[in-house]
Amino acid sequence: MSIPQLRVALLGCGVVGGHVAARLMASAEEFEGRVGARLNLVGIAVRDTSRPREAGVDSSLLTTDAESLVGKADIVIELMGGIEPARSLILRALESGASVVTANKALLAEHGAALRAAADDAGVQLEYEAAVAGAIPIVRPLGDSLAGDSVNRILGIVNGTTNYVLDKMDSSGLSQADAVASAQQLGFAEADPTADLEGYDAAAKAALLASLAFHTPVELSDVHREGITGITADAVANARADGYVIKLLTVCERVQSSSGPAIRSSVYPALLPTSHPLAGVRGAFNAVYVESEAAGELMFYGQGAGGAPTSSAVLGDVISVARRRLLGGRGQATPRAGSLRLLPMSEIRTRYHVVLDVVDQPGVLAQVTEVFAAKAVSIETVRQSVRSAADDPDDESLPPAGRAKLVIATHAATNGALDDTVEALARLDNVAAVVSTLRMEGN
Amino acid sequence: MSIPQLRVALLGCGVVGGHVAARLMASAEEFEGRVGARLNLVGIAVRDTSRPREAGVDSSLLTTDAESLVGKADIVIELMGGIEPARSLILRALESGASVVTANKALLAEHGAALRAAADDAGVQLEYEAAVAGAIPIVRPLGDSLAGDSVNRILGIVNGTTNYVLDKMDSSGLSQADAVASAQQLGFAEADPTADLEGYDAAAKAALLASLAFHTPVELSDVHREGITGITADAVANARADGYVIKLLTVCERVQSSSGPAIRSSVYPALLPTSHPLAGVRGAFNAVYVESEAAGELMFYGQGAGGAPTSSAVLGDVISVARRRLLGGRGQATPRAGSLRLLPMSEIRTRYHVVLDVVDQPGVLAQVTEVFAAKAVSIETVRQSVRSAADDPDDESLPPAGRAKLVIATHAATNGALDDTVEALARLDNVAAVVSTLRMEGN
Repeated sequence: MSIPQLRVALLGCGVVGGHVAARLMASAEEFEGRVGARLNLVGIAVRDTSRPREAGVDSSLLTTDAESLVGKADIVIELMGGIEPARSLILRALESGASVVTANKALLAEHGAALRAAADDAGVQLEYEAAVAGAIPIVRPLGDSLAGDSVNRILGIVNGTTNYVLDKMDSSGLSQADAVASAQQLGFAEADPTADLEGYDAAAKAALLASLAFHTPVELSDVHREGITGITADAVANARADGYVIKLLTVCERVQSSSGPAIRSSVYPALLPTSHPLAGVRGAFNAVYVESEAAGELMFYGQGAGGAPTSSAVLGDVISVARRRLLGGRGQATPRAGSLRLLPMSEIRTRYHVVLDVVDQPGVLAQVTEVFAAKAVSIETVRQSVRSAADDPDDESLPPAGRAKLVIATHAATNGALDDTVEALARLDNVAAVVSTLRMEGN
Repeated sequence: MSIPQLRVALLGCGVVGGHVAARLMASAEEFEGRVGARLNLVGIAVRDTSRPREAGVDSSLLTTDAESLVGKADIVIELMGGIEPARSLILRALESGASVVTANKALLAEHGAALRAAADDAGVQLEYEAAVAGAIPIVRPLGDSLAGDSVNRILGIVNGTTNYVLDKMDSSGLSQADAVASAQQLGFAEADPTADLEGYDAAAKAALLASLAFHTPVELSDVHREGITGITADAVANARADGYVIKLLTVCERVQSSSGPAIRSSVYPALLPTSHPLAGVRGAFNAVYVESEAAGELMFYGQGAGGAPTSSAVLGDVISVARRRLLGGRGQATPRAGSLRLLPMSEIRTRYHVVLDVVDQPGVLAQVTEVFAAKAVSIETVRQSVRSAADDPDDESLPPAGRAKLVIATHAATNGALDDTVEALARLDNVAAVVSTLRMEGN
């Protein structure tokens, strides 16, 4: 009996694509055993066929004609990145009956709903495990394993660059600039690290995580995004002194609003207690922490980027798609999902950690706490640091002589109430500076 | 347009079954949206219809006639446990064209291959996410997400009872008997805790994990099993003093044998460095740590048991199976898997941590190290504790006056070589006792 054959087309042959192509060829026998069909790599679409490629990539498969390549494949793997021509090629592949595997988080965050609808119309599969948290299986667990549960909250560290930078600032006391330089040297940050540092990469993943967890379409523009560029070495040290680490968190949660159940999806740097499972996620690692109704706490940990780790997730999808094609039947039906309202950040209540540089004299604490009370922001703890530059002139994190540091942790309040509070605090004569305001999560 | 209906039969209505039944009814609307079909619970087979049940369970659905119930269902959920009648009922369900979801690890570890073959013959699905590590999605990640990768090693904490007991001994210095009593009081251990303490429960899960990770049939009888009953408070304290915690580990790995690539699947208590991600898994939590070729390190963490957490995994499978039935096509094809040889424990090489109670006099260390050398077991570190009962009469873990404690960590050696070494050590006049020999993992 002859073994069935499936034609696989690869779009893009960069770091991840090179790994995928090499592994498809090197592991052809093994994959044949796992699928029950031969996966034949029939072509690799690239912009420049003369560029040198990953070892193990058969250069005779390279072509610049992506259009005709997608028309003759059973499975198309899209690893070009960017919106166009990736979007058009994927649509063309789906319409011609191919199943598609992609790692393109930016494309999915912007056009995911339309692409899923196209896959549904064509009765084929569209899979994207590699688009969120690289090698960590999270798309399938959220979409399938937890489909019978109700996810209440996701806290994610889904950008390795910012986690490396913040971890380095925390463990070595580096400035952010030096930590970024170190990340660049190790290949954990791009020459232009803006997309990572400003949270754009994490925001695209936040849109995908919220869509999956809440069975509700969430797009990139729905995600509240703040990056880490404002996080100083001092802020990291202050957090550490109080038993916290600062992480760039993706926070997606079910919330009660005045108009009923709703959700939010957001990305911002926040303080996390050192005892929280996510606080131990070091270096460029990623992790997604899930709280759900029945399952309780879950955490998924692993490498979020890199050629080999990402290729693992891509090939897992390829094998899953290939198995399904052999079994017959339609690829996927977009479930008639619930559609929860997305709350804007201004309506979200979170806890805050406010650090003030104040004049060290009687009555200041009373003035400050009165401002919080007037804005209806309830204070949980206040810590006053009496040390100043007079005590240790070499410690640059200390305020000048005659001044003190006030560290205030609040109960949950809205963004708006906190903004008003900070504005009023800054107007007090005895407040020299609002050193930092950061949200607190994980407790 | 009328919505499709799927008939769901539940076998067993204990702690997990009660949760599943209640949630199927309470979340019927929500699940209908996620599946695209109504999940109708048509009956619940129990031994005694008059026993009180979980709130939310419709008692009019209870029946003692499991045989006829499975014959009229599209999806059968088996939560009775045990081998018979569960095995016959599942086979009957599969043969009559129903898809089956089960949490029965003991049954799968003994008859998994036959049940999967029956599902394959009938062209329907057999899913069992809840059978390993309760609520933690691990079956689907290993079977699907990592299907395009090559898993090298799995270290798992997959039994909550033993993890609670060992953690309690470590954190509170309790004896094992007291820690077990505490676990029983909190509902983390059964009245007869043998299946947990002796590693039988973990061994069944080790068989399933190895089968999935290595695409090779592994049965319960293939698993090397050692429990924790021999672990004393002293052993835990000795490990802690050296920077280790003792965990009951499920170790499945790809190994090179003289006759080529092979695998092993085993369960035993072992020392793990406190810096290892698994060392932070506290209380009754479970976690599975995976090392794979391309993805690198991954960890999956969550609750391994309990009615609600387990029901989350069961219902995830139910929704997945329901969606697939709507899409049409065959349920699953058992992939023509690789078949790696299983190595017996005697051929496996691991590191050991040996604690000796010796006479404190010159030349003893030389005698001891000579024994290791003669048996070709290479020593990595030796630590001699000079404190004895003469220094602190109240510390019962110290050896009597005139004696010392030798703590030896070896390089990897075979079981056989170590057994020979320990036998020879015990014969030395200057060795009063071999206090403990434990394997070391995770570094």
